[in-house]
Amino acid sequence: MPQSDTLNRRIVLAARPRGLPTPGDFRLEETAVPTPGEGQVLLRTLHLSLDPYMRQLMDEIAPVYAASVPLGEPMPGGTVNRVAASKHPQFRPGDLVLGNTGWQDYALSDGQDLLPLGEMAQPSLALGGLGMPAFTAYVGLLDIGQPKPGDTVVVAAATGAVGSVVGQIAKLKGARVVGIAGGADKCRYAVETLGFDACLDRHGPEFASRLAAACPKGIDVYFENVGGAVFDAVLPLLNIGARVPVCGHIADYNNEKLPSGPNRLPLLMAALLQKRIRMQGFVILDHYGDRFDTFRREMSEWVDAGRVTLREDRVDGLDNAPAALIGLLEGRNFGKRVVHVAEG
Amino acid sequence: MPQSDTLNRRIVLAARPRGLPTPGDFRLEETAVPTPGEGQVLLRTLHLSLDPYMRQLMDEIAPVYAASVPLGEPMPGGTVNRVAASKHPQFRPGDLVLGNTGWQDYALSDGQDLLPLGEMAQPSLALGGLGMPAFTAYVGLLDIGQPKPGDTVVVAAATGAVGSVVGQIAKLKGARVVGIAGGADKCRYAVETLGFDACLDRHGPEFASRLAAACPKGIDVYFENVGGAVFDAVLPLLNIGARVPVCGHIADYNNEKLPSGPNRLPLLMAALLQKRIRMQGFVILDHYGDRFDTFRREMSEWVDAGRVTLREDRVDGLDNAPAALIGLLEGRNFGKRVVHVAEG
Repeated sequence: MPQSDTLNRRIVLAARPRGLPTPGDFRLEETAVPTPGEGQVLLRTLHLSLDPYMRQLMDEIAPVYAASVPLGEPMPGGTVNRVAASKHPQFRPGDLVLGNTGWQDYALSDGQDLLPLGEMAQPSLALGGLGMPAFTAYVGLLDIGQPKPGDTVVVAAATGAVGSVVGQIAKLKGARVVGIAGGADKCRYAVETLGFDACLDRHGPEFASRLAAACPKGIDVYFENVGGAVFDAVLPLLNIGARVPVCGHIADYNNEKLPSGPNRLPLLMAALLQKRIRMQGFVILDHYGDRFDTFRREMSEWVDAGRVTLREDRVDGLDNAPAALIGLLEGRNFGKRVVHVAEG
Repeated sequence: MPQSDTLNRRIVLAARPRGLPTPGDFRLEETAVPTPGEGQVLLRTLHLSLDPYMRQLMDEIAPVYAASVPLGEPMPGGTVNRVAASKHPQFRPGDLVLGNTGWQDYALSDGQDLLPLGEMAQPSLALGGLGMPAFTAYVGLLDIGQPKPGDTVVVAAATGAVGSVVGQIAKLKGARVVGIAGGADKCRYAVETLGFDACLDRHGPEFASRLAAACPKGIDVYFENVGGAVFDAVLPLLNIGARVPVCGHIADYNNEKLPSGPNRLPLLMAALLQKRIRMQGFVILDHYGDRFDTFRREMSEWVDAGRVTLREDRVDGLDNAPAALIGLLEGRNFGKRVVHVAEG
């Protein structure tokens, strides 16, 4: 179903998921395209970013850093938009902007949350390799992880939007990089295309002992974006003085309650203390003010010079967004998952 | 039994404890007083520090930062000693030094691990308020916890050697300080004598809700030295940007295996991420080189000016050290526990 000029398709939260979301937790609706008032722009969605944090906003109790999605309201999300109509002095019809209009064809904005993109050869990059996920990788790795040449850096979801950039920046900084991914194809890609030193299939047998073998000098930086069994395998390998930026823990997002015991918290406490480990959570929203311009400039140089490879996992059509988010939460994406809602 | 000139009493590790140590895990032996060779000094023990880390060294697998005590060998520990005889050019008989001669009357040293103390009115302070425990408080609170004026700082074992100094330094830095201690006497002392803003009895009913009520603006710095149920109550109260220096987790030291479930690690991960919390372990041995002189100077000024109050929990006689360590691990100390082995 293509984008219409007169109807606004939107996908709303129909029910709060229990565990992994199902298609029935979403509902496609059609409403009228809204009309901008004075100082507003009407935005048309070209591309919609799908990201793991969206799962957390579907719960009634949302994480501290963002609001829960009310039932019946459109799912939120970062977008690339065209200005379709403008009563705002700073925007003209046809302008390309980075927005936050979520899972719908049209939305109004007062312009304050918009970033003009100029003309880009591949605008969807603003949602991935030049946008939030890569910025997350950049800040988490460099500002918190602080890899030194020769350090061993481990990152899971190694071919995903964040992990793939973490590993490639770590290589640029002289680290040895070990990725963790789901499946042989992704592991091969991480080593052959992204240049990781090794990549382990987390589904394979004896994962923990293979990880230990792949990190003969231990782990100096673990970029945490999955949690669960991967973290359990990483913990005993962390070196004295290791840094653990905590960016996400997707393995837990669909859990309705805490996993059964034993309680591994004392094990973490002992490791933090004895190995003088620094573990630090971060939310990328905090860092746009002081780090985004530097990131954007440096990352653009790396991408233009071919030093960082970006892979988009393209999904066509807004109506495919629910299945695509469910797949993302199951690790079935291969690269940065972006919904192409409309062209041009 | 007083100190002899010819016999060396020493308390050795007789058996590896299972859970809380028992008196039978220690054995008092008598050996000859050793004779110093060229470049050595003979040290006589005046005061012996008792500290929670000693429990960890009694296990076969010791923490990363120190060696396990071999069965049949003397228990280790920080000491204040007199030089009894010297074949070392830098030490003379009668010199007062800070040493590491452990649970015995006499030991030899090549001088490298000794710190001359000059003459002190109360030499045992070198084991507490001017020594390792207070230095631990100083580095953990100021360098990792980084309290700002108006911050809420929470510390457990609030009247202990470390916690009492953490809270008092935090007050000097303008923070609001909430202590946690075992028993009404200790809580009263923390408020009335140490100047804490509040202190909660961890044995009392509804501890978690009382802690929440005592921290209406949440917790900005939690100095972690106990772990267990106290940490569980602290976690939901941590503010955005909170800092958690991890100094110890005594609640776990006697556990032979991990506690039963649920596994609370995902809860910690979620809190670290959403609240951008920094949690960092440290081992005080790492910091003597660059921070001890500053600490010593500043702390001496505070003590001399009456701005920091120190309380020693004095135990008389080397043969009482085992029971005193067991009591310390049960939280039955009230202040810095020091064994007075001999006078003068």
